Amino acid sequence: MPSPIAPDARPVLRLLPGHHRRVRTGYPWAFSNEIAMTPAARALPPGSVVRLEGDDGVAQGAWHFNPHSLIAARRLDADPDAAIDAGWCAARLAAALRLRERLFPGSAHYRLVHAEADGLPGLVIDRYGDALALQANTAGMEALTPALVEALAGLLAPRVVVARNDAGVRTLEGLPDEKRLLLGTDPVAEVEEGPLRIPVDLLAGQKTGWFFDQRENRARVAQLAPGARVLDAYCHLGGFGLRCAANGAESVTLLDRSEPALALALEAAARNGLAPRVRAERGEAFAVLERLGAAGERFDVVVCDPPAFVKSRKDHAAGLRGYGKMVRLAAPLVAPGGFLFVASCSHHVSPGEFAEQVLWGLGRAGRDSRVLFQGGAAPDHPLHPLLPESAYLKAVLLHLP
Amino acid sequence: MPSPIAPDARPVLRLLPGHHRRVRTGYPWAFSNEIAMTPAARALPPGSVVRLEGDDGVAQGAWHFNPHSLIAARRLDADPDAAIDAGWCAARLAAALRLRERLFPGSAHYRLVHAEADGLPGLVIDRYGDALALQANTAGMEALTPALVEALAGLLAPRVVVARNDAGVRTLEGLPDEKRLLLGTDPVAEVEEGPLRIPVDLLAGQKTGWFFDQRENRARVAQLAPGARVLDAYCHLGGFGLRCAANGAESVTLLDRSEPALALALEAAARNGLAPRVRAERGEAFAVLERLGAAGERFDVVVCDPPAFVKSRKDHAAGLRGYGKMVRLAAPLVAPGGFLFVASCSHHVSPGEFAEQVLWGLGRAGRDSRVLFQGGAAPDHPLHPLLPESAYLKAVLLHLP
Repeated sequence: MPSPIAPDARPVLRLLPGHHRRVRTGYPWAFSNEIAMTPAARALPPGSVVRLEGDDGVAQGAWHFNPHSLIAARRLDADPDAAIDAGWCAARLAAALRLRERLFPGSAHYRLVHAEADGLPGLVIDRYGDALALQANTAGMEALTPALVEALAGLLAPRVVVARNDAGVRTLEGLPDEKRLLLGTDPVAEVEEGPLRIPVDLLAGQKTGWFFDQRENRARVAQLAPGARVLDAYCHLGGFGLRCAANGAESVTLLDRSEPALALALEAAARNGLAPRVRAERGEAFAVLERLGAAGERFDVVVCDPPAFVKSRKDHAAGLRGYGKMVRLAAPLVAPGGFLFVASCSHHVSPGEFAEQVLWGLGRAGRDSRVLFQGGAAPDHPLHPLLPESAYLKAVLLHLP
Repeated sequence: MPSPIAPDARPVLRLLPGHHRRVRTGYPWAFSNEIAMTPAARALPPGSVVRLEGDDGVAQGAWHFNPHSLIAARRLDADPDAAIDAGWCAARLAAALRLRERLFPGSAHYRLVHAEADGLPGLVIDRYGDALALQANTAGMEALTPALVEALAGLLAPRVVVARNDAGVRTLEGLPDEKRLLLGTDPVAEVEEGPLRIPVDLLAGQKTGWFFDQRENRARVAQLAPGARVLDAYCHLGGFGLRCAANGAESVTLLDRSEPALALALEAAARNGLAPRVRAERGEAFAVLERLGAAGERFDVVVCDPPAFVKSRKDHAAGLRGYGKMVRLAAPLVAPGGFLFVASCSHHVSPGEFAEQVLWGLGRAGRDSRVLFQGGAAPDHPLHPLLPESAYLKAVLLHLP
């Protein structure tokens, strides 16, 4: 971990000729092939704070630098001499908090920091009331973690802060997987969403415990639930299904391959007084969807919110077809006049590609459809306008006459 | 107006060789250059119900036909012998109603019929409680209007039904502009949206009185309003501004070029007890935005929801630039940390083109931004998946740090 460097001793890196234009317009990244990789630059510890200059010598601000990463530099501050310390972290965190307090008055459950879009490149923080889960996805944010924890303690006085540093992207930065307590002792928290209270263990489970990005989509689907038979495929902790149950679904079937996830979902159902109308079905989604279809089971609302089928460019074609297959198997389960909600969180799948797969699956299932809604992640996942590719979540709600 | 034709006497039209594939996959239109335009076909009265066949002689259902329109045929029913009468209308209307009752439980204010997506091509019906406004945008729907009114009377027992047949698209079908009562006597109704009750005269004003397509977007913007100074540019009846006022905005400025629209908006403000916090500014939006900016006025929330700048392909370039200019003039009015909501209802502008203009305007105004939400029309405006170009509404909510 690099030691703090006073601004005047800050290393200077230079962009290669012709590569300063994008940075000057506010683009928050500089790639390794855009920077003059001198021996001195290569020798800098990953996560160093540097001054970046154009080849014209004009300073372009303070950046995190990792000589071993394709995204070699990430903009921290327009001021090349800004002290990147706990005070700086506190100012960025306070701005992120102000936005969430505007978006979700009275709530303390949301994504507090969404990386570049909150001026904290590579950093994600989810807030569950007095518990915080932090993901440092760059060497720079790894190095800055003590300052971030200090700033969070001052701003929110959290009971517990955990590092959920097990995202695959960390390997691109040469960082190890790790999950650990950064502050406090008890990693168990409770997420509040609508009428639900759901226990989450911030050091166990997928991602940081809960998927805040689908909050609004869950609310939208739950509006359709009164009196409905609901199937929540790839349910994880059961967010969609339990919101539906809480809004008056007649019955909810939770489907997942993970026994522990289903156990947690059923425990959450019980905690919220929903157990009598919620049942679990364990198995691989494709196989279970096919079996339920063959058995003539029908639902008024079917939700398919799978993990990313396309995890890298090389499995793009096969993964993409997975969405089509999912829809082909799910559509027959939707009763006439019912609803199908499908989502993709694959970064490498465009909205158009996803829509094509959805249409293909509906066609193969012989089902007509109408699109009621197309959207993305909730607004606590703001989008940097110069990084449109970071709009990873694609959600479609269909009516099947 | 053609007289009812019994199915067995129904004229038969044939698709040209090679043009049946799209129709067979469910595409709801056939273009004039895809149909064998025999003298008999050309002589059919606009709005006739016909059987359409592939050049292989396979029947492709019952269609509305207008020999003078580019979109010459619009699919009514997969059954080529379906009787297209009040009973048929009632079944389609009942299905459309069931969907809205699912989407908006307890409400009777929405777009009840959204044309092709509700299986009633060219027909739009907006519902304001016991008052209905109908737009017949094809000769077929014009001919079917008496049957539609009979079906609506049976289904909803409305107090009043008006024809708002003044949409420009009717000229493509050779239909005249007209606004008239179809049933009942009093065209004044009241729209309920959130906490607001707003009087609308279904025979006056723009479109059918109220723009239901922005309902969810108004709710989203209003969530940001507590304590805020709000500017609602191109306010028409003041929907965005009044929702903000009702949700605790400190002050709301309504901006429109139309004196009558502003008078109605202020009357609505008074009716809802919001008058003390609402003021009106009459003028051309560009000029007023520029003047307010020069005067140093700042708002926490700025809404720009203009009428279509691009009304046809030929004014695409100039109209498109209008969105950029609008954002360039509006962005300086947003206080640091405030919000900018912008929309385009131009059919001929793609989401990508609109986003580019928004970014250009922000850049010219020297404002950084984050995208919180991108979306379209509310779900009572469902989208036929084979007519993606009918997704006309593009809305973007931005945070300006």
